[in-house]
Amino acid sequence: MTGAQNPGSSRVLDPLKADPKPKSHPLGPLTAHEITEAATLTRACWPDNIEYHFKVVTLLEPAKAQLIPYLAAERAGQHPGSIDRRAFVVYYFRGTHNLHEAVVNLTTGKIEANVKLGPFTHANGDGEELIAVEKALLAHPDVQAELAKLELPEGTVVVSDPWIYGEILLLGVWNCLLRLVFLGSDGLKEGNFYDDKRVLQCFLYMRDPQNSAEPDSCHYAFPLPISPVMDPTTMELIRIDILPTGHDEKVKPLAPWQATSAAEYIPEAQILRTDLKPLQVVQPEGASFTVENFSELGRLIRWQKWDLKVGFNQREGMVLYDVHYDNKPLFYRLSLSDMSIPYADPRHPFHRKAAFDLGDAGAGIMANNLQLGCDCLGSIYYIGGVLSDTYGKPVNMPNVICVHEQDAGILWKHTNYRTNRAVVVRNRELVLQTILTVSNYEYILSFVFNTAGDLAYEARATGILSTQPLDLELTKSPHPFGTVVHPGVLGSFHQHLFSLRIDPMVAGHGNSIVYDEAVPVPRDPKLNPHGVGYTIRKTEIKSSGGFDLDVDKNRTFKIINPAVHNPVNHAAVGYKVMVPPMQTILADSESFHNKRAEFADHNIYVTRYAEGELYAGGLYTNQSRGGAGVRGWANRKDSLTGGDPVLWVQFGINHIPRVEDFPVMPAETLRVMLRPVNFFDRNPAIDVPSSKQAVNCSVSLNKPGDGLEESLAVGVEVLDNVNT
Amino acid sequence: MTGAQNPGSSRVLDPLKADPKPKSHPLGPLTAHEITEAATLTRACWPDNIEYHFKVVTLLEPAKAQLIPYLAAERAGQHPGSIDRRAFVVYYFRGTHNLHEAVVNLTTGKIEANVKLGPFTHANGDGEELIAVEKALLAHPDVQAELAKLELPEGTVVVSDPWIYGEILLLGVWNCLLRLVFLGSDGLKEGNFYDDKRVLQCFLYMRDPQNSAEPDSCHYAFPLPISPVMDPTTMELIRIDILPTGHDEKVKPLAPWQATSAAEYIPEAQILRTDLKPLQVVQPEGASFTVENFSELGRLIRWQKWDLKVGFNQREGMVLYDVHYDNKPLFYRLSLSDMSIPYADPRHPFHRKAAFDLGDAGAGIMANNLQLGCDCLGSIYYIGGVLSDTYGKPVNMPNVICVHEQDAGILWKHTNYRTNRAVVVRNRELVLQTILTVSNYEYILSFVFNTAGDLAYEARATGILSTQPLDLELTKSPHPFGTVVHPGVLGSFHQHLFSLRIDPMVAGHGNSIVYDEAVPVPRDPKLNPHGVGYTIRKTEIKSSGGFDLDVDKNRTFKIINPAVHNPVNHAAVGYKVMVPPMQTILADSESFHNKRAEFADHNIYVTRYAEGELYAGGLYTNQSRGGAGVRGWANRKDSLTGGDPVLWVQFGINHIPRVEDFPVMPAETLRVMLRPVNFFDRNPAIDVPSSKQAVNCSVSLNKPGDGLEESLAVGVEVLDNVNT
Repeated sequence: MTGAQNPGSSRVLDPLKADPKPKSHPLGPLTAHEITEAATLTRACWPDNIEYHFKVVTLLEPAKAQLIPYLAAERAGQHPGSIDRRAFVVYYFRGTHNLHEAVVNLTTGKIEANVKLGPFTHANGDGEELIAVEKALLAHPDVQAELAKLELPEGTVVVSDPWIYGEILLLGVWNCLLRLVFLGSDGLKEGNFYDDKRVLQCFLYMRDPQNSAEPDSCHYAFPLPISPVMDPTTMELIRIDILPTGHDEKVKPLAPWQATSAAEYIPEAQILRTDLKPLQVVQPEGASFTVENFSELGRLIRWQKWDLKVGFNQREGMVLYDVHYDNKPLFYRLSLSDMSIPYADPRHPFHRKAAFDLGDAGAGIMANNLQLGCDCLGSIYYIGGVLSDTYGKPVNMPNVICVHEQDAGILWKHTNYRTNRAVVVRNRELVLQTILTVSNYEYILSFVFNTAGDLAYEARATGILSTQPLDLELTKSPHPFGTVVHPGVLGSFHQHLFSLRIDPMVAGHGNSIVYDEAVPVPRDPKLNPHGVGYTIRKTEIKSSGGFDLDVDKNRTFKIINPAVHNPVNHAAVGYKVMVPPMQTILADSESFHNKRAEFADHNIYVTRYAEGELYAGGLYTNQSRGGAGVRGWANRKDSLTGGDPVLWVQFGINHIPRVEDFPVMPAETLRVMLRPVNFFDRNPAIDVPSSKQAVNCSVSLNKPGDGLEESLAVGVEVLDNVNT
Repeated sequence: MTGAQNPGSSRVLDPLKADPKPKSHPLGPLTAHEITEAATLTRACWPDNIEYHFKVVTLLEPAKAQLIPYLAAERAGQHPGSIDRRAFVVYYFRGTHNLHEAVVNLTTGKIEANVKLGPFTHANGDGEELIAVEKALLAHPDVQAELAKLELPEGTVVVSDPWIYGEILLLGVWNCLLRLVFLGSDGLKEGNFYDDKRVLQCFLYMRDPQNSAEPDSCHYAFPLPISPVMDPTTMELIRIDILPTGHDEKVKPLAPWQATSAAEYIPEAQILRTDLKPLQVVQPEGASFTVENFSELGRLIRWQKWDLKVGFNQREGMVLYDVHYDNKPLFYRLSLSDMSIPYADPRHPFHRKAAFDLGDAGAGIMANNLQLGCDCLGSIYYIGGVLSDTYGKPVNMPNVICVHEQDAGILWKHTNYRTNRAVVVRNRELVLQTILTVSNYEYILSFVFNTAGDLAYEARATGILSTQPLDLELTKSPHPFGTVVHPGVLGSFHQHLFSLRIDPMVAGHGNSIVYDEAVPVPRDPKLNPHGVGYTIRKTEIKSSGGFDLDVDKNRTFKIINPAVHNPVNHAAVGYKVMVPPMQTILADSESFHNKRAEFADHNIYVTRYAEGELYAGGLYTNQSRGGAGVRGWANRKDSLTGGDPVLWVQFGINHIPRVEDFPVMPAETLRVMLRPVNFFDRNPAIDVPSSKQAVNCSVSLNKPGDGLEESLAVGVEVLDNVNT
C-alpha cells in the first residue's frame, strides 16, 4: 500500500490517546505477568514433581457488589479504592483425569481455593490435544488396519477432526434406569469406556488423493466411514466406530473407497472472477473513535457519545463492560455466553454431535488473528489478547478484536413536499468484531453501535460443514437427516443456538424486565365501533424463568428502569431487546442434547443476578449432563422485585444445508438489537450532521443523455427536490 | 470535490456501454412521446370541450403468454418479433367524479377500451390536489372560524396533511345491514357525505409560532384538533371534524391553544456533533456493473453474473423484470405490490387512517430525486423516470433510482487450523434504491443482489410520525392508542404491512411452491434411541390460498422447479423465501381496514398467475371496500399444478412509537431474502477473489506498544494465521 493508493493514510489521526503507564483495573484482562504468577502460585500448592496441563487461567472478575461502587467512583473522577486481582485457574495433573479449580489472589499472592473436582466434570479441549490426538490415532495400528480396508490411493493423507464427546449413553430409553444404577459410582460404562474419562470422537477424512501435497485441500469432501474414539489424556484408542453410510442406522463392512471428486475452497483451485472492482473505505481524517488503555490489556473506547470497556478472555473472547451513552449507564456486562450446535442425525455415533464451542473450546483461545484489509475495511484499530497455554505460559494473541466504523445506509430522512427540501442522515456504525474458528467452522461475532443509541450483537455463521460419508450410490436420493452436498458427502441438519448474556443497568441498576403485547380492543359501540382499535398490554416478569416470543402478539421484551422516567412522557425509561424468532431445540426434553443446552428451549431466560453465573450451559460443558446452567438457575424462581435481572437471549438458525453451503458456506447472519424505548427525549441521532457530497465525495457514473434531467425531450417539467 | 480528495474519480470507467439509438421494447417504461400520444388519443374519444384530470398514464405490460417467447428469443439472440405497445390510462373529467379507464394501443394508434367506472371506485390522489385542497380549506371561512377558537398566536402558519379517506361507515356494527340497504344505490350516507364522492380527511397542524417564517419547521410537533373533510374534485368543504384529544372518544369544545415547545429536525435547529469524521467509499477503477438501455427509459444492468431489466412506473416505482443469474432464469417480475398502514386509534375520525401509499398515491410519482453523496456512497448510476402529470403531459423524474455497490462485511471465511491459512471473501452487494415520500413519511426501498446468488428486498421506514393532538395535561400519562412523543403530541400505534409480489421463473417457468418444516423424529429404539433426531417434512402447495409462517416448525417457503434437478443431489432446484415474521393485521376481519388490506392477514399468499393481477390490495385502493385483491384471487382455489404461481410475501412491523421516533424516526429496517437452495452445484461465490490489503488499502490505527505482537513482554509465544 502506498500513499498514492490511499491519500488519507498520511492524515490519519491516531485514536490512541497518550496514556500514562498502563494501570491495573479490576476488569483488565490478566496480563502476561499475572498469568505467569497465577500458574506459579498454583504449582506452589503441590509437590515439585507434578506436571500440569493448564486449561484456563483467566480473570476472576470481582463481585458485582464490590465493582459497582468502584466503577461509579471512577466515573465520578473520585478515587475508586482498590480491589484485589484474582485469577481463576482450571488444570489437570498432566496425563491424568484429576481436574482442579483454583482461585489465586494475585494481589496478596495467596491461593484462596484449590479443589479437585468430582467425577463426570471435564475441562475444555485445547489445540495442543487436538493435534496430539490426530497424530496418535493415525499412527495406531488398529486405525491403520481399518483404513487399509478402504484401499485408499497410494500417498493419501488422512486427517482427523476430533469432536468433544456429546453424550455417553447408548440407549436413551434406559437413561433413567442407568442413572439410578450408576449415579455416584465411578461412571457410566459403555463398552470399555467409563464416563469419568474425557474422550474425543474423531471423524476421519482425507485430502484429495489427486492433490495430497496441498495442505489446504478441503478434506471435508472426502469423509471416511471410520471414527476412532480416543482418550486425549492417555492418547489411548478406546474404540473404533464404523459409521452408518446409508439412510438408516445399519453399518456395513468397510469396502474399498470409490473415487469421487474434490471440492476446494482455496482461490488457486478456482477460475476467479475478474470483474469485481476495488471498493475502498477511505477515512481521510482518521476514525471517529478513540482508544485508551484502562489497564495493560483492557481498552476503553469512546465513539459518538458511547463509552465502553473491552475485555478478552479464553472462553467468551470479547466481553464488554460498563457501557454508557452520553454518560448514561446502559449495560454492566455483555458477552456471548454460550452456543450449542446439536445435530439431527440420531444414528450412533452421530447422535453425540453437539458442539459447545465456548465451553468445549473457547471463543478467545480460538480467535483469529485478524488481517488488515481482509476482515474489515477502512481505518482499523486492533486489540490483542494474552491467554495461557497448557503450561501456564502466556500466549500473545494478536489482533483478536478489530474496531472500525462502517456506513450502513440511511439512518433517517425526510423530504418536506411543500418545499422539496430533503434532510438525510446516514447511519454510521462502530463495529467490534472477533472471529473464531473451531475446527471446520467459523463464527464472526460483532457488537455494533450506532449514532441512534442502538447496540446490536451480530453473529455470522460460515466455514465448512462437518460432513459425513454417504454411499456414493445414494448421492442422488433425499436423505432423512441431511442434504447431500457433494457426491458421497452428507451435510447433516443441525441447529446453531446462541445465548447472549445481558447484564443491564439501564439508567442505573435496579432494572425490571417487562414485555409488551399488541392486542385488539374488543368491538364496542363507543370506543371501538369499527373494529380497528388495538392497544398495548404490559406484563412485568416478577420472578426468574424461561420466556418465549409470540410474534402473533408482537411480544416485545424490554429492560426498564422503573425508577427513572422519560422527561417527555414519564414512561419508565427502557431498552427493548429485538430477537429474531427461532425454532428452539428439537432434541426432546429427555435427550442429553436438550439437557446440556440448558438455554436452547426458550427465546429468553431471565435470572436474578448471582455471582459466578456467566455461562448459560454451565461452567463445564464437555461431556456435561445438564443441571448446571441457566435452566436450573431460572427454576429457582427468584423474585426480580428490586432489580438485578440478567437476560439470556437465545437466537439461532436451523441449518438445513444447501449444496450452496459447500465447500464453504456463505454466511448466515443474525442480529439481536438493543434499542432505546422512551429512554431519550427525542431522536438521539437528530444532531448527526446531514449527509453531504462535499464530505462523502461520491462519483456519478451518468453521462449526459441517459436519464437525468438534461437528457430528456425538451418541454417536459422537472419535479425536483434539494438536499442540504 | 477535487481529484485530490478522490483520487479515483479520473479513472472511473463509464458503466454505460455505447448504445445504438434507444429502441422500443415491450417492457420499456412509457416514453415522454408515448405519454403525450396516449393522452392525445384518449382525448380524441371525447368532445373537444371536455377537460381531463389524468391520474395514471402508464405502460400496460404485454400478456405473459406473449412476452415469454419474446424474452426467450431476445436472450437467444434471435429476432423476437414485435409486440404492440399499450398504455393504461386512468382519468376523470376534470371537476367531476366521472372516472374512466382506457387502454390505448400506441402501435396502432387505436383506443382498445374506454369505460366509465362504476360507483365507489376512486383513483389515487395527486400532488396537485393536495396543494389545492390545502389552499382551499385554509381559505374557507368555516375552517377559519374554527381555527379562530384556538386563538393561535399572531402570524401562525397553519398547514394541512390531507389523508385518503379510509373508511366511510360510522357504525361498524351496522356494516352488514347498511350494505344491504345501500348496495347498488348511489352511495353510503354519512352526514351530508356520500361514498360515491372522493374525499380527503385533512389533519391540521401549525408551524412553530416562534418560527413561522421557517417553511421546514416541523409542524407535526403542533397538531391541531380541527380536521376538515374536503372534496378534492369540487374543493368543497364537506364537514369539519373536531378531534378527540383525551384518552377516550369524547370531543371537547375547542379552547385556546396552550403554548408548547417545538421539535425541529432541520440541522440548523440542532447543536450538531462535530466528531463524526468523513467516511468515503472510493472505487478507483469505477463500478463493477454496466448499464445498457433496453429501451429509451428501461435499463439493463449486468453485475457479477446477474442481469436484470429495470422499469419504473407511477404506482410501483421500481420494477424488475427478467432477472437471471449466470444466464439462468430466476424471476420474471418483482415489485413491491402494495402496502397498508392501518392505525390503532379507533376513535372517529382516526379510525379512517389506513394509508395505501402505492394505490392511494404512487411509489413512482412520489419518488425522491436522489442526490449524489447523500442517499448512497461510492460510484453511483442514477436512473430517471418519466411519468404523466394531471394534464397528460410528461414529467421528468430525475434520479428516482440509484444503482451502486456496497461492501457488506464477510461473505465467507475459513481458517485451516492445521496450516493457519485463512481465506476470506467479502460480501459485495449491488443496491438499486428508490425513496418515496408520502406526506409525513418516507420509505427507502431497495433490491439488493450479492455475489452468492442472493436477492434481498429491503424496506426502511423513516420520516415523521403522523401525529395527533393531545390535551397538554395528559402528556405524562400512558395513552391507550399511542405514545406521547412530545408535549401535547400523540404518535398512534400503527402497522406497516408491505406486500412484495414475486412472479418467479426459477430455472424456467413451471415453478411450484413448497414449504419445508423441521420436525422431531419420534423416539425409536433403532432409529432414534437418544431422542435427538429430526428430519424435514415437505408440503407442496397445490392450490392458491393464504399461508403463514410457523417459526416453531422452521417452516420455510421455497419456489422450486420440479422439472430441473440439481446436478449434485438431484433435488428440484429452488430459491427459498426468507420472510421476517410479523404480526398480521390487528383490525378485525369485519373491519374495513382488514377488508381493504386484502394481503395483510397472511405472511404468504400464493395465486395462479392471471393477467392484470398486480396489486395485492386491488387496482383502486382509495376508499376501497375490499374484494378486489389477492384474498379474493387466492380464494378461487386455482390449481397450481403445472406451474405459474405468483407469491405475495407480506412483511412489516407493528410500530409502537418511541419518544426516540420524534421529530423524525431512525429507520426501521426489514429484509426479505430470496436465496438459492440446491440451485447451484456449489457455493456460487467460491470464485470471488479473496479479500486483500493490496486491493482494499485499509489503514491500521495501532501504534507500537498497544496490543499487537511486538508490544508485549518478550518471551511470549505468538499464535498466528496468515491471510492470502
